[in-house]
Amino acid sequence: MKDLARESISGLPEYIPGKQVEEVVKQYNLKEVIKLASNENPLGASPLAIASINENAKFSYVYPDQRHTILKEALSAKLAVGKENLIIGNGSDEIMLLMAQVFLSAGDEVVLSRNTFSMYEFVTKIMDGTPVFVDLKDYTYDLDGILNAVTDRTKLIFLCNPNNPTGTIFSKERFDAFMSKVPDNVIVVLDEAYGDYSGSDIYPDGLKYVRAGKNLVILKTFSKVYGLAALRIGYGIAKPEIINYLHMAKMPFNVNRIGQFAALAALSDDKFFKESIENNERGKEYLYSELGKMGLKFLKTQANFIYIEFNENSDRIFIDLMKEGVIIRPLKSFGLPNSIRVTVGTMPQNERFIAALKKVVK
Amino acid sequence: MKDLARESISGLPEYIPGKQVEEVVKQYNLKEVIKLASNENPLGASPLAIASINENAKFSYVYPDQRHTILKEALSAKLAVGKENLIIGNGSDEIMLLMAQVFLSAGDEVVLSRNTFSMYEFVTKIMDGTPVFVDLKDYTYDLDGILNAVTDRTKLIFLCNPNNPTGTIFSKERFDAFMSKVPDNVIVVLDEAYGDYSGSDIYPDGLKYVRAGKNLVILKTFSKVYGLAALRIGYGIAKPEIINYLHMAKMPFNVNRIGQFAALAALSDDKFFKESIENNERGKEYLYSELGKMGLKFLKTQANFIYIEFNENSDRIFIDLMKEGVIIRPLKSFGLPNSIRVTVGTMPQNERFIAALKKVVK
Repeated sequence: MKDLARESISGLPEYIPGKQVEEVVKQYNLKEVIKLASNENPLGASPLAIASINENAKFSYVYPDQRHTILKEALSAKLAVGKENLIIGNGSDEIMLLMAQVFLSAGDEVVLSRNTFSMYEFVTKIMDGTPVFVDLKDYTYDLDGILNAVTDRTKLIFLCNPNNPTGTIFSKERFDAFMSKVPDNVIVVLDEAYGDYSGSDIYPDGLKYVRAGKNLVILKTFSKVYGLAALRIGYGIAKPEIINYLHMAKMPFNVNRIGQFAALAALSDDKFFKESIENNERGKEYLYSELGKMGLKFLKTQANFIYIEFNENSDRIFIDLMKEGVIIRPLKSFGLPNSIRVTVGTMPQNERFIAALKKVVK
Repeated sequence: MKDLARESISGLPEYIPGKQVEEVVKQYNLKEVIKLASNENPLGASPLAIASINENAKFSYVYPDQRHTILKEALSAKLAVGKENLIIGNGSDEIMLLMAQVFLSAGDEVVLSRNTFSMYEFVTKIMDGTPVFVDLKDYTYDLDGILNAVTDRTKLIFLCNPNNPTGTIFSKERFDAFMSKVPDNVIVVLDEAYGDYSGSDIYPDGLKYVRAGKNLVILKTFSKVYGLAALRIGYGIAKPEIINYLHMAKMPFNVNRIGQFAALAALSDDKFFKESIENNERGKEYLYSELGKMGLKFLKTQANFIYIEFNENSDRIFIDLMKEGVIIRPLKSFGLPNSIRVTVGTMPQNERFIAALKKVVK
């Protein structure tokens, strides 16, 4: 098959998902395992979304709306952008792929950070683009370094804010300075998958650039604070010229029907949204305090996960925590072999994680 | 944006979906509209699948299994192929795209038929492949013509059996002869989306070629007889070498979790499957008889839809039927401007279609 397949395919980064609870229960013969590895919402899914799924189950024989009209109308009202500024994807992952499919020809350069979500590199390489990597600076996207890496061949820049897996953000001020210097023929993709968790005053405002017609695509998702990771609903916000091209390149029935309606319901569930943010805030404070007492190196987070760095390879810690029934994410696949990422859970989950960590860290 | 986007994107065929019931109700101020345009299962979704959706709704915060293990195990048992012979997609559409992403470089040729499902052309063009079109012969895939179109540059051949929209099949004998002549460096994609409806003794057996290690990918779907179009679950069957490449190229969480479990449940619902086939058989016989009495030209079908050809452009018929509250599919976008495709419905739906058609056809 190697002679028939495109060369780029074997070079794609493999995505290493969080271990599944059932796997670990079986492997270590445990009774109760908690998963703090995939940044899922520890409160579950919005009750309004669950009700919507139950109502729509009987319509599962019907093809989804390929134009995602109802969900776009609700997002348009909520975000104060036009419907023509929106595209819905099978997770925001799919919109990253569409960006590559629409804009990348072989050899086009894409500026990426190291130590970030691997999908940007994946979509670049699948279209034979050339990834140009820039190091993080103080665990944060280095926007100046990224600007310096831009060449005549640069087509796209991917930014993750807050960054997965460090939980850091770059500020509004830095982003504004960055946007003023990005050449007009480069498109910036700003992945805000975790943006809902940042209550920071200095969190950048991407929408003003979309409204001003700049080449910026903002990506958001229903997989995190809205608790719908199972249903794969992400969306992109950009000027109509970009959105039109993404629509031309998408498969007609890319987003399942149950998910479209569940996202619509979740979007209206302000109570669940608020509780999810509050749970995250409480959990962060507790974890900061406990990790601090243990003398561990960690980063304050703008997201729903915490980055912790050890003086040893974190695979051992990952495995020992698993034996205690706690699944976290070791960060070797992010290029950070001494670090882990732990999702902020419910308070009982956070306490259980800390108790397990105390046993495991020497 | 035109200077930034790849040239191929503007040349992609636009998919024209079936009109939605709600649209037509509104547009023509009608009370009850039936849709026989998208070949959905007129009996709805499998009751076991609906129960599964309701059970899984509360787990919507959990990421799907990226390896689709449970569904693959069930399919493996049902089809008597290995798990390593299977890939699950966000509809079988996604597997068509993956085939193009893995195997097509710019200028590679793909042999396609005219008057067939447009997605084959779409995925070819998005990877800058060159579609080479072969006419149907007697409304059926012309396998000899397709072989004649194969050149040194041919990478893929797409076959649709039964063909959408004509409902015809090519026989086992013809397919066997064809497979014996396809060069080893060409991969055949055999789309059997409607294969479950063909009870014909001469329907080809693709699995034997997969088991023999030939370059054949069979595509099947849960969108038709299993009644799960809303949830986007298709799958591919091929030798492990091909499947491995498709897995490397797929996005990790391509298939939603509710859909994976609903498909698993539907697969075990023999009663619903049987009723769906029986309803289709009854409907076909009724429609054959009525269309025959009306003296219309139609094709006997191996699928769940019937192809009807008129002596005039079918857009007028499409619109007049819509005014009568019946949505069917005009076939201009399939390159058949005088024809329509009508889904076999429940008996009351079939009767309503015939009554409307009698009013509309002059």
